[in-house]
Amino acid sequence: MLNIVLLGAGRVASQLGPALVRAGHRVPYVWSRTLASAQVLAEALPGAEAGTGLDLSDRRADLYLIAAPDAAVPALLAEARFPTTALVAHTSGAVPLAVFAPYAGLRGGVFYPLQTFSLERQVNWQTVPLCIEAADAAAEAMLLGLAHELSQQVARVATPQRQALHVAAVFACNFPNHLLGISHTLLTEAGLSFALLEPLVRETIDKAFQHPPFTVQTGPAARHDEPTLVRHQAALAEHPEWLQLYKSLTDSVKAQTVATAPNNQGDVQL
Amino acid sequence: MLNIVLLGAGRVASQLGPALVRAGHRVPYVWSRTLASAQVLAEALPGAEAGTGLDLSDRRADLYLIAAPDAAVPALLAEARFPTTALVAHTSGAVPLAVFAPYAGLRGGVFYPLQTFSLERQVNWQTVPLCIEAADAAAEAMLLGLAHELSQQVARVATPQRQALHVAAVFACNFPNHLLGISHTLLTEAGLSFALLEPLVRETIDKAFQHPPFTVQTGPAARHDEPTLVRHQAALAEHPEWLQLYKSLTDSVKAQTVATAPNNQGDVQL
Repeated sequence: MLNIVLLGAGRVASQLGPALVRAGHRVPYVWSRTLASAQVLAEALPGAEAGTGLDLSDRRADLYLIAAPDAAVPALLAEARFPTTALVAHTSGAVPLAVFAPYAGLRGGVFYPLQTFSLERQVNWQTVPLCIEAADAAAEAMLLGLAHELSQQVARVATPQRQALHVAAVFACNFPNHLLGISHTLLTEAGLSFALLEPLVRETIDKAFQHPPFTVQTGPAARHDEPTLVRHQAALAEHPEWLQLYKSLTDSVKAQTVATAPNNQGDVQL
Repeated sequence: MLNIVLLGAGRVASQLGPALVRAGHRVPYVWSRTLASAQVLAEALPGAEAGTGLDLSDRRADLYLIAAPDAAVPALLAEARFPTTALVAHTSGAVPLAVFAPYAGLRGGVFYPLQTFSLERQVNWQTVPLCIEAADAAAEAMLLGLAHELSQQVARVATPQRQALHVAAVFACNFPNHLLGISHTLLTEAGLSFALLEPLVRETIDKAFQHPPFTVQTGPAARHDEPTLVRHQAALAEHPEWLQLYKSLTDSVKAQTVATAPNNQGDVQL
């Protein structure tokens, strides 16, 4: 059983805290900038105290987990005081391990869950890839062990790889979600249900994890179908900002389909 | 039992032909520009003849289904000769019903399966939304009846709606697949498996069909996290074309998150 202090009470911390307790660990303290947030999470964790104080030098724990937004990690580290040789890990995909370098007394680590989190949906930790990195072997072994208790997918991922992973995740998740939002809006405007597209979207995703996605690209851009592209652009006249995006994405697909010479012959639906 | 002539032997026709036969119908003739393609499909359809001839005036059938690429439909219609009052339907999302207007002798219709098709994966027609439109009530009734035999999701969708649907499908499927291809490439270059992202992608899609996607947008662009955006752009230096796309998509997400004031406060992972 480890004592794990949680810094953060947002989406990641709210899913991680209960998972750590279920795995048999103890969370003695939950910190948040806003006491109310810390209290909400602490109430879900037996024995946890909530607070806004960042002087943790007297709060000995096996691990201090910073589950805060990427941009908040450096300031939080600068502000907090930890016991000497404390093991402090952050959960951010985009923040390098070197963020700990200025703090000679700390042992730094990364415990990055590769998943999107929301307050309303409970995450199945068993399927969340956990990406681990640490400055020393003992810290790494501890974080790997903890990760294996939560998930079946644990990987040692160094900072440059993690940053590539983070960029890749933006392309694979954040941007597609935005495009789904555009799609949702266009269908709503046409009086159609977004649910009509669900089978098509799921088939697209299934395919993309069975074959390299560039090799199964379909659609008017992939087959350089100019009449359809022109009609689509006309249909987007009322959304000039999305029209621009349509053109940029179309150009990128076209460039790629020339570059990789995909299966864009024959009858290609959609 | 209907007699249904198939014009096309590509991805759509290859999935549609066997499904029609399984539903109890007969396909007497499969046309393709290349005889070999027509023959491959005809062999899978009991009693079907293969050919490249487009004079169908003596080939009486209840329905002529044009399962050809969007761009090929007008030329095919101009070239083919059908019996008078033949019911001819195309399977294209982007081609208006008005494509049949110049042919006074024909009864036009649309039988648009909203799914991506590939030769190697068998489609489950029960879950494919079929979008039906026709110039006269009898033709519509016939196409609707046929559609209901194949699928549990049948919708009457007029041309303007269908074109909105087609544009929406490009945003929801073709473009996300392209972005997954970029993601796949970035991970491969970093020595990581694309499979690491699968749980995250699937969670993103699940969420997008449970809540309007714009309201669950996450990521550095949605939270206007400039340090991460700058780091990501630096990481894309070797792919200038994708860097440009990253910027365009980021700007669009930013504009949207200002416009809809989403949940971009608090701890947002990814």
